[in-house]
Amino acid sequence: MASFQAQLEESADRVTVALDALLARADGPEARLASAMRYAALGPGKRIRPFLTLAAGRMLGADERGLLRAGCAIECIHAYSLIHDDLPSMDDDDVRRGRPTVHIAYDEATAILAGDALQSAAFEIMAGADTHPHPSVRLALVEGLAKASGARGMAGGQMIDMLSPQRVGDDIGVLTRLHRMKTGALISFSVEAGAVLAEAGSDARHALEGYAHDLGLIYQIVDDLLDAEGLPSIAGKAVNKDARQGKTTFVTILGVDGARERARHLAAQAKEYLALFGSSANILKDCVDFVLERRS
Amino acid sequence: MASFQAQLEESADRVTVALDALLARADGPEARLASAMRYAALGPGKRIRPFLTLAAGRMLGADERGLLRAGCAIECIHAYSLIHDDLPSMDDDDVRRGRPTVHIAYDEATAILAGDALQSAAFEIMAGADTHPHPSVRLALVEGLAKASGARGMAGGQMIDMLSPQRVGDDIGVLTRLHRMKTGALISFSVEAGAVLAEAGSDARHALEGYAHDLGLIYQIVDDLLDAEGLPSIAGKAVNKDARQGKTTFVTILGVDGARERARHLAAQAKEYLALFGSSANILKDCVDFVLERRS
Repeated sequence: MASFQAQLEESADRVTVALDALLARADGPEARLASAMRYAALGPGKRIRPFLTLAAGRMLGADERGLLRAGCAIECIHAYSLIHDDLPSMDDDDVRRGRPTVHIAYDEATAILAGDALQSAAFEIMAGADTHPHPSVRLALVEGLAKASGARGMAGGQMIDMLSPQRVGDDIGVLTRLHRMKTGALISFSVEAGAVLAEAGSDARHALEGYAHDLGLIYQIVDDLLDAEGLPSIAGKAVNKDARQGKTTFVTILGVDGARERARHLAAQAKEYLALFGSSANILKDCVDFVLERRS
Repeated sequence: MASFQAQLEESADRVTVALDALLARADGPEARLASAMRYAALGPGKRIRPFLTLAAGRMLGADERGLLRAGCAIECIHAYSLIHDDLPSMDDDDVRRGRPTVHIAYDEATAILAGDALQSAAFEIMAGADTHPHPSVRLALVEGLAKASGARGMAGGQMIDMLSPQRVGDDIGVLTRLHRMKTGALISFSVEAGAVLAEAGSDARHALEGYAHDLGLIYQIVDDLLDAEGLPSIAGKAVNKDARQGKTTFVTILGVDGARERARHLAAQAKEYLALFGSSANILKDCVDFVLERRS
């Protein structure tokens, strides 16, 4: 795991450098917008989604430059979603990764616009010629990213989350659907993007689909566990918010021990999907343990 | 002009029907999101942007179905921008086209998410196989739409607008840049999309670029004139807001007569760009007069 941590950090650094080059340092009267976009996208972060794109794509022989660009596009979507989720009318969070959220560091209008423009930037980056030489591959990525982030993906999941607990109740099926959409769709697409860029066959894609599905759920269950147990200094954000807001989580339904057990079960299952790839999938397996054991 | 009005209405109806089919009537707990997206995108509207795509593309021989899809994608971007611009932290408008704005009819969180998801939907529609048989054409449209809506286009222009009057002052250069970005970029892209779908040559593209540039500015000058003079029942939204908010507009800088004169001058210039196309461009010429003389 020490070596996994080093690889994750190395990948995060490369993504940050690439994003720094892709997100213009605009001058002129609109410079405030570019500044807020860069504050959100270039701040501290594990960059777990681009890491998954790079790891899956490298395993399948995809070109490095395209993987990095696709990972940056996905990270822009993730960054935009965090800005909007933190807004006062949404989750109303003042702190994210140990820093003031964008609407606190700037203002609410700037935060909304920075999220909007990061979404446009994501599609511009993904569609760009450097992502892959074949237009049809880039188009598949654009369509996949739009689906993962739209009404049947991330945005739809956040809508259900805003309506929780009324809509979720104690129904673990609805809760799973919520997180499958809210965080799972983009995590799944991060893995899928690597396979698309490698032009992988359907066996590989299906195996990675199963893997990513379980990984996304583990990610959310651990998030709920961290919120229920964590210290703000560890999580880098406000904790115990779910309980204060009366939200349904995997912990409120399954209890702490039940949620941990569920996550461990999913972790074993996620690794089984990778059997197809032998030892070349070791880094993706390590990623399961990392997500399972993370403390922030 | 009577026949122009009929053609505009016919085009608007077709766009509304196509959008109705493209924007899913989702069920499940996230149905509220789909409902808000449809409320915003399918409500009353002139659909002037898709009209421009259809008119330019038909003139140049593009396929009808692709023009309609591209027009729908552009209308989704326009609809999302109106939802977000109307938010309390932005322009704080309660009424739009004679109906409650989305954050009034629903709530603020739903409005933010509906805008976000309409942006994703726009890219998904544009990238779809039915837009054009050649992937490279669809990619060019995706890239163009992302640029027109992003930090150097619509979102960047709205950022400058939020910082007005401090940043704009009485500088007509900055004001023109603001509107060139905020409304001009998407209007220009609407015309360009028709040319891209027709795979038109560079002479035609450059002529249409000049035309669309001027049309966008006329549109904004007339907006400022309507705001300064209009009655809410005509404009379908709150008026006199610019003056109340101390905003710089073409009217505050040029005066009512000066702004009218500027718009008329631009209208003549816009029509000159169309000389290349002879009488086949009559509908685009009529569109200039329509935008110049519109009362809402």
